[in-house]
Formats: sequence, C-alpha cells, structure tokens
Amino acid sequence: MPSLEPPRMGEPYLLTPGPLTTSYAVKAAMLRDHGSWDSDFRAMTADIRARLVALLGDPAFDCVPLQGSGSFAVEAMLGSFIPRGGVALVLANGAYGQRAATALRVMGRAVRVLDKGDFAPPRGAEVAAILADDPAITHVVAIHCETSSGILNPLPEIAQAVDGAGRRLLVDSMSAFGGVPFDTTEIPCDALVSSANKCIEGVPGFGFVLARREVLEAAKGNAHSLALDIHAQWAELERSGQWRYTPPTHTIAAFAEALRLHEAEGGIPARHARYCANRDTLVAGMRGLGFATLLADEWLSPIITTFHAPADPAFEFDAFYDAMKARGFIIYPGKLTAVDSFRLGHIGQMDSAVMARVVAAVADSMAALGVGDCRPAPAALAAGEVA
Amino acid sequence: MPSLEPPRMGEPYLLTPGPLTTSYAVKAAMLRDHGSWDSDFRAMTADIRARLVALLGDPAFDCVPLQGSGSFAVEAMLGSFIPRGGVALVLANGAYGQRAATALRVMGRAVRVLDKGDFAPPRGAEVAAILADDPAITHVVAIHCETSSGILNPLPEIAQAVDGAGRRLLVDSMSAFGGVPFDTTEIPCDALVSSANKCIEGVPGFGFVLARREVLEAAKGNAHSLALDIHAQWAELERSGQWRYTPPTHTIAAFAEALRLHEAEGGIPARHARYCANRDTLVAGMRGLGFATLLADEWLSPIITTFHAPADPAFEFDAFYDAMKARGFIIYPGKLTAVDSFRLGHIGQMDSAVMARVVAAVADSMAALGVGDCRPAPAALAAGEVA
Ligand SMILES: Cc1ncc(COP(=O)(O)O)c(C=O)c1O
Ligand SMILES: Cc1ncc(COP(=O)(O)O)c(C=O)c1O
Repeated sequence: MPSLEPPRMGEPYLLTPGPLTTSYAVKAAMLRDHGSWDSDFRAMTADIRARLVALLGDPAFDCVPLQGSGSFAVEAMLGSFIPRGGVALVLANGAYGQRAATALRVMGRAVRVLDKGDFAPPRGAEVAAILADDPAITHVVAIHCETSSGILNPLPEIAQAVDGAGRRLLVDSMSAFGGVPFDTTEIPCDALVSSANKCIEGVPGFGFVLARREVLEAAKGNAHSLALDIHAQWAELERSGQWRYTPPTHTIAAFAEALRLHEAEGGIPARHARYCANRDTLVAGMRGLGFATLLADEWLSPIITTFHAPADPAFEFDAFYDAMKARGFIIYPGKLTAVDSFRLGHIGQMDSAVMARVVAAVADSMAALGVGDCRPAPAALAAGEVA
Repeated sequence: MPSLEPPRMGEPYLLTPGPLTTSYAVKAAMLRDHGSWDSDFRAMTADIRARLVALLGDPAFDCVPLQGSGSFAVEAMLGSFIPRGGVALVLANGAYGQRAATALRVMGRAVRVLDKGDFAPPRGAEVAAILADDPAITHVVAIHCETSSGILNPLPEIAQAVDGAGRRLLVDSMSAFGGVPFDTTEIPCDALVSSANKCIEGVPGFGFVLARREVLEAAKGNAHSLALDIHAQWAELERSGQWRYTPPTHTIAAFAEALRLHEAEGGIPARHARYCANRDTLVAGMRGLGFATLLADEWLSPIITTFHAPADPAFEFDAFYDAMKARGFIIYPGKLTAVDSFRLGHIGQMDSAVMARVVAAVADSMAALGVGDCRPAPAALAAGEVA
C-alpha cells in the first residue's frame, strides 16, 4: 500500500464521513482551470465514468455523474427511476432513509416507510412479508451504510427479498461504495448512488448514479425536475461527452486523481481492509478507555462508528469537540434521536497508526474535561441494543 | 488595480463565460480540507453570504447558496418563489430563457413564454402589454445577460413594466452579477440568481440566490423538490449556520478568496470597467480583422461577444478551435439556432493586454486555416439585426 501523507499546514484530520481528509495530490489536481467544453475535459469525464463502472464490475451498468451534493443524486435517482405512478417502499433506520422518504413525498410519489427507528436493521424476512402483503409496491429503497448510526445494513438479504418478489431495488450506497464490496450478483439492483467525497476520497461537489443501461433508457420523462433528471444527463453525456450544465471542473479533476490513488492502493479490497483495520484499532482503543459502541460488532461498518456519550456529568460534547480539535482531530456529533452519542469516522487518508493517535487524543481530552469514567448510563446501553 | 497573473503550467486562457480563468490564489485556497460542521467553516459561509448581500447593496435581501451548477439554483429559485398556483411569464431570447421555461414545465407550473428568437431583446413596452392583457400572470422571469448571444437585456425597463403592473420579477443574472451593476431601486425584483464561477471569478460548484427576506419567508412548502428548496436551505442556514447537505467545501473556500480579490480590485465598478475594456479591445481588434459582431454596440455586454463565422469556405470552427488552443486560448462555440457563429468570453483573470493577444492569435489562426476574408455572408449579417 502506498504510504499515507499527513495533512499539511497544521490541518486537523477530519474524522467525519465526507468531507474527509484527502491526499495532497487530490487537492493539487485542482490548481488548474479546465474548459468544460474542451476535449481534454470530456476525456476526463469519460475516464471517470468508465472507472466507476469498472469498480462496480458489472458491464450492464453505466455511470451518470450529477452536480450537487449526494442528496441531489439520491433525489435524482428516485425521481428518475420510479415512474410517476410507481409506489416506493423505503427501508428506514436513520436520517438518510428518512430523507429519501421525504424527497419522495415532496416530489409527489406514493411512498410507504418501514421505520426501524434510529438504527435497527431492516431484515430480509420482514421486507419479503411487506412485499407479499402489498402488491402495489414497485420499488424498494435501501440504505447501504446508514451513516447516521454507522450500521452496515444487511443488503444481500434485502436484495434477495426484493428480487424474489419481482420488485426493483434502488440503493443509497453514498458512504459505502468504493470502501465496501458491492457485488451485483449478490445484491441485484436497478441502481445505486454515491458521491465524490466518500470512500473514493475526493472532494465534495458531485454525486454519481450507477444504473443498469435498460433502466436508464426507460427513465425518459419520469423526473420531477429538469436539473435532477438522470436520463437527460445520461443522454447528453452519451451524445456529446459533456455534462448537461456547467460541471464542477476542479472537483472532477480531483476525483480523477482520487480514482487513480484508489486503484494504486489496490481497489476496493485494499481500501476495505484499511478501513476495517482503522475501525478495529479505534473501537478496541475506545473500549479500552471504557467507551461503548452503540452497535454490536456484527453491525459495525468500516465507515463510521457511533459511541455512547459517557454518563459522567463532566462530559459535554462541545467541550470534547474543542479538546479534540485542539489535538488535531475534527469529530462529529451523534445523529440519534433518543440516545446521547457522538461519532468518529474512519474513512479518508488515515491508517491504524492515526487511529491509535485518535484514541490517545480522546484519553487526553477526557482527562482535560475531568471525565473519570467513560462508560455510558446502563439505560442508554440497553436502548442501543438491536432487537 | 492589482495586476493579473498569467495562468501557470502552460495552461490556456479560458475565453468561456465560466468556468473561466481564475487567479492562482483562488485555486490555492482549495489545498486544504474543511469539516463542514466546524465553526471555522460555518464562519466562512456566513462571511460569503454577508459579502454577497453587501455587493447587491440592499439590506432587504438575504443570500442563499445552493450546491450544484447555476441551473440548479435557477430551477430552485423558480420552484421556491413561484407558488404551485402561480403563473410565470418567461422572457426568452436565447438558450437560458428557454431553459427556465422548460424547468417550469417539468415542475408543472403554468408558464407563458415571450419568445424573441435567438437574441432580440424583450422590451418594457411589450412586457407591459402582455401583463395588461393577462391578469393571471403572477411572476415574470427575465435573463440579465443572455449568455447564449451575449446580449445585455434591458432589465431596468422590464423591471419597471413588471413593477408597474404589480407583478413579481425573478432574474437570472448568472453571468452578469458582480461584473455589471445591479441596483434594486432601478431594477425592483423579488430575487436574482448567479453562481460561483462567473463574474466573482471563483471555481464552479454552487450557485446562490439573493432574495428579499419576506419572499424567502413566504416560500415555505412551495418547492417541487427537497434538494432544490431555497426556503429549507435558508431556514437551515439561519438556524445552524450550516448548508443543509454536504457543501462543496473546497469550492467555497476558493469563492471566499475570489470575493476578497473582487473587493481588492474595487468591487463591481472596477470589475465592470475591466470587463468593458476587455470587450472594447476585443471587438475593435476583431472588427479590424474583418469580423462582425452579431449585435450592434448598444446591445453588447461586458461578458461575452458573439461573432459571425466568416463566409470564407476555408473557415471551419473545429480547426479554428484547435488553432486557438495551440496558441493558448480556449474559445467557445456559438449557441444560435439560425446563424453560424462563435463566441469569445471576456470575463475572468484577463485584461486588455490579454485581449490584444487574443486578437493576434485569431489573426494568426485565420492565416493558418487559409481564411483570407473574415467577413460574414451578407445574409447572415442581415439575420443578425435587432428589429
Ligand atoms: C448514506 C448517506 N446518504 C445520503 C447522504 C447525503 O449526502 P450529502 O450530504 O452529500 O448530500 C449521506 C451523507 O453523508 C449518507 O451518508
Ligand atoms: C444566463 C445563464 N443562465 C444560466 C446558466 C446556467 O448555469 P450552469 O451552466 O452553471 O448551470 C448560465 C451558464 O452560463 C447562464 O449564462
């Protein structure tokens, strides 16, 4: 594996799941202006699309990048691939599942929600039962890694249930794609979505949809929005090699470099191994300090981990944030509605040695805050158990 | 005026109206990763919003940045400020007016179009007549600089007509804001939109809406899209100081630097003067070579100018493009439906000395192509006259 460089200019590491710490080479690729109409830039777009399809490893798919943040690409996927008369079942166990359901409601699509609360995983059997009960459902929307808790949802069993019932699956793999294997024979689906600033380790500015070619072809006229029309974007890319509207040229050049580094590291298997090692070092170290993870080991993702806040009244998130920032690490608040928590991401240009330093900085920060005991309240622990 | 630096690393100048040639300092601001939740980054967002409102110079307005290209911000402005029962009149004289009308149709809003063809300007008197005839129209959508021909539309007379009829005006000032004065007493309107990579000379990746605060407040629930909801984005910025979804952090840091440089140059008056001088040098030089502009002088904008293609059969756009690229300049194709043309932009980090070199490169390229006479066909000239 190529060695990782530390951030420059005294920058902190970002323990956030995108934007994240990128390599200097990725940022340096932005030191040049590109004309969006120019053939060199069109070649860069074509190269990125081809590399992303190759990463998925299924030539029945094509890649459609879209300007905006990842949520724009999720909404575009939903609006473009679920026809106006379709009915969607959203499998929600956190903020991103809820957001997909809200997007569908705003655009006026019929939507049912399987709401599992803050983190409990939707299981294949319950999805199969809902689909058997409700023949009107045409599409199922699943979240791969639900970043709001860090859970890696059981996508293979969900996909089998959807496929078995003859329905179509759309996947939000925003925070997972490129860092977690995605095998379309094991996870049959119509499309998935991710973005530049997650496991590929680019900078934020666009998302991308990977979709079956026949699904792209059938999507004409579905979208509720001109800008968020994946079919129209795809058709223009195929016709002229250009993005429909002004592309974020610098972000795209950075992403091309990020894809080269991803490949040089050894592709998805190597990145997955590094992220898993990051998580293992972090979780073992934090447990050693007395912290508890929200989820049991089997549900932890390589992306981000939620920890319970210590019960010790000396603990205060804002003070912890500042203490960690002073030690060179930007952490992330929790996103649970019921349990007091915080999150530490483990993707980006960081390895196990950095994660060991994170644990040391946490220990140090706890001492500075006067937190003697990092264990959560027993009631919080119980609330965090997956049924 | 601070002196302009030439592009580095043998990069060509971009004679395209955004992406354009940015200063090195703007690009260098992207050499650092920012956490989007962090207070330093939130302060950067607040600073940008305040500076843009100050540029407009009307404290009744607030600024809402939005991820994606400029078209995303245009669509978001239209969907958020025209209520579902509203009726829009789009004043179209080119591709961007047509695109606004299409966006409205896709989102299901009632829309009338005053279609002036490829470039003829919509005039105040005809707008007043249409509004008098059709009381159902609630909103008028106008394009400031219609970049597809380069015309600077007569916004003050249009705005007076709309205001006089008691209707609301929404302005696409994408390519003009920051480089052309915009006085809200002369141009009363509810909102206008622009983007990072135009006259402020940032890199592409987001747009921004400047809107009256009471218009923002009234926009709740109007939008056809979750991601393109200006009210929701504004409410979150006001509540937490954060963008609703992952912001393009590097692009934003670049834009903050671009705004500082804009101010250091002397703000809108200085930039307007530089762009006008660029245009004047370019147009005089090109006319000296025999080229003709599509538009008469009174309609030329400081942003971009359309030239007729030479009638000489040795002229071929692709060969001209390559010849200019070899000489360090990226040019832009025409966007007219009826007249054979090309465009040269004059915004970005370029001054009159650079424009004189553009003219010399054009002369050189014409010689290389074997074009002896740069004049257009008389029929094309006639087609280009504003009635
Ligand atoms: C699973 C998932 N879906 C959607 C999003 C939204 O992406 P963005 O913040 O880029 O809009 C995220 C962001 O972290 C995510 O993790
Ligand atoms: C007047 C006008 N409106 C809209 C747009 C669309 O902006 P974008 O290409 O960033 O989507 C442009 C782009 O040049 C423009 O000039």
